[in-house]
Amino acid sequence: MLGRTYDNQDCSAARALELIGERWSLLIVRDAALRGMTRFAEFQRSLGVASNILNKRLDDFVAAGLMERRPVPGHAGHQEYVLTPRGLELQPIVLALSAWGDRWAAPDGPPVHFEHRDCGGTALQDVHCTTCGDRLAGADVVARPAANTA
Amino acid sequence: MLGRTYDNQDCSAARALELIGERWSLLIVRDAALRGMTRFAEFQRSLGVASNILNKRLDDFVAAGLMERRPVPGHAGHQEYVLTPRGLELQPIVLALSAWGDRWAAPDGPPVHFEHRDCGGTALQDVHCTTCGDRLAGADVVARPAANTA
Repeated sequence: MLGRTYDNQDCSAARALELIGERWSLLIVRDAALRGMTRFAEFQRSLGVASNILNKRLDDFVAAGLMERRPVPGHAGHQEYVLTPRGLELQPIVLALSAWGDRWAAPDGPPVHFEHRDCGGTALQDVHCTTCGDRLAGADVVARPAANTA
Repeated sequence: MLGRTYDNQDCSAARALELIGERWSLLIVRDAALRGMTRFAEFQRSLGVASNILNKRLDDFVAAGLMERRPVPGHAGHQEYVLTPRGLELQPIVLALSAWGDRWAAPDGPPVHFEHRDCGGTALQDVHCTTCGDRLAGADVVARPAANTA
């Protein structure tokens, strides 16, 4: 983890980054939340990262309540890493990164398509206004201190 | 930048993280895209980060085409950093981080509220299916290789 680097930030984005801002962390979330990976060897094959770094990231995820370490049924001594509900809800962050990369950093077209598991339709992330219903782009959104911090 | 750490990853999320995965980068995006900051001193006051690191991040953003460096009208020799369209579209990543942090790491309630600038309504990010219209949570979404990589 980032070791409370962002401690002076009263900001939910910063608090999220304290937990998943280290290199490789969000790609582990990607592999677990979108590609169904649970095993150390699967993550390592996918990421090509050194074992000690991967171990540290998975340990940190478990410590932060983002993953649970579970024995693998029928494989004594083997473990798997399964996202908790708290961890699985990181998925939209990966989808937002992917949407940006698809649009601005994929000259050969998007390498991956995100689907609704049940119907096969496209899973689309967007930002919209809950009052007027408009779909919102960057300049349309502004941050205001919430009432509870007044 | 991460120096092509994720070079072996054919993944748009990884490509995005190559540009904005370094510590502080996404909080600079937050300050620029949601809090209207453009000046070095504003970013530094907001982040409390060392000048050399902030300088490096802003230089990297300019090099990556995420920001433009512009003279400040009426202040000879002063510059401001303004997000390009490519940079402004990083905003949903910050909103996704914030939504997660609001839900899972904000014991005192969300510190910030995101509003539609025009009507004052709440800016909400979600993931939904473009075919059946369902709102999708983590386990509903799956990644498949896109047709163009077959």
